[in-house]
Amino acid sequence: MSHEHPGYAEDKAAVLKRLARIEGQVRGINRMVEADTYCIDVLTQISATTKALEAVALKLLDEHLAHCVADAAAKGGPEADQKIKEASDAIARLVRS
Amino acid sequence: MSHEHPGYAEDKAAVLKRLARIEGQVRGINRMVEADTYCIDVLTQISATTKALEAVALKLLDEHLAHCVADAAAKGGPEADQKIKEASDAIARLVRS
Amino acid sequence: MSHEHPGYAEDKAAVLKRLARIEGQVRGINRMVEADTYCIDVLTQISATTKALEAVALKLLDEHLAHCVADAAAKGGPEADQKIKEASDAIARLVRS
Amino acid sequence: MSHEHPGYAEDKAAVLKRLARIEGQVRGINRMVEADTYCIDVLTQISATTKALEAVALKLLDEHLAHCVADAAAKGGPEADQKIKEASDAIARLVRS
Repeated sequence: MSHEHPGYAEDKAAVLKRLARIEGQVRGINRMVEADTYCIDVLTQISATTKALEAVALKLLDEHLAHCVADAAAKGGPEADQKIKEASDAIARLVRS
Repeated sequence: MSHEHPGYAEDKAAVLKRLARIEGQVRGINRMVEADTYCIDVLTQISATTKALEAVALKLLDEHLAHCVADAAAKGGPEADQKIKEASDAIARLVRS
Repeated sequence: MSHEHPGYAEDKAAVLKRLARIEGQVRGINRMVEADTYCIDVLTQISATTKALEAVALKLLDEHLAHCVADAAAKGGPEADQKIKEASDAIARLVRS
Repeated sequence: MSHEHPGYAEDKAAVLKRLARIEGQVRGINRMVEADTYCIDVLTQISATTKALEAVALKLLDEHLAHCVADAAAKGGPEADQKIKEASDAIARLVRS
């Protein structure tokens, strides 16, 4: 974990790949409902998709803490406080969603 | 709430519409990451999408309890027990996802 | 799973035991904060306690679906619809909490 | 938000008060089950208690990010990376619990 965003390019590609897969999962759920698939099977697929989205959010949050928040904290001052407040609010939204 | 699935057609159309919107939200998140949108804004969008997926799951579960589970319970026997077990397991997956 | 609440006595004893343990966990968290325990360790303990509470809720919900809701559904009529609506609302609260 | 823990004393007192209230809520749930209170009412109380515990966790996490993590990030080096990794893991546990 460095603060110069090395390898951000790979991370970004990996995140985009995961999001493309999630988009496909949602499309699959749509097709399942369209085809009157048994409700419990649709719910299983929705739970898996929600977990996959949460995992992407946690990944982005990790990056954000390790880069933006850490850089701002290293500089200190009001911007540091604001970045931390902002991250806390985003975490609260994730925990509650 | 009746057990003969009245208006199921409308419900299905509404669920499909919601899923199409969620698919669009996921595509939007992909574009945000692609365009290096500020991480906190991406997280806000992911939280909203997760909540929307959960709402669809709760809607499908309501229908399932009101129709399949209620019908099976009305008939009784091992099938009723199995339907209830299955619903409980799906609820546990939702609560934990 | 029967609808005459057999073994409800044992289940109740088990649920009470789990709740007593959770009460002890919360008391332990209080002591940790009192003693200025490292924040991350307190958070780990809170996550474990939240999971334990959720597990009790899922257990009670299972029982409720298998007994109250199944009985009401077997009888049918408006009471059945109301029990199912009530269970759906409780599930939504759990998923969102 | 400063990094010298001003007013930490008040925050600690407030957190301890909230935890004492949560302990009372869990004891109340125990009494409800003991008295065979209607299951749905017990579930409502459990959801409220889970939310209260989560709110304490988010409060502690805010403090932790604003003090420990910010201080470590300001100093930099491997300790900063480790504190951020540790916080990310705690956040993941909270989101999943």
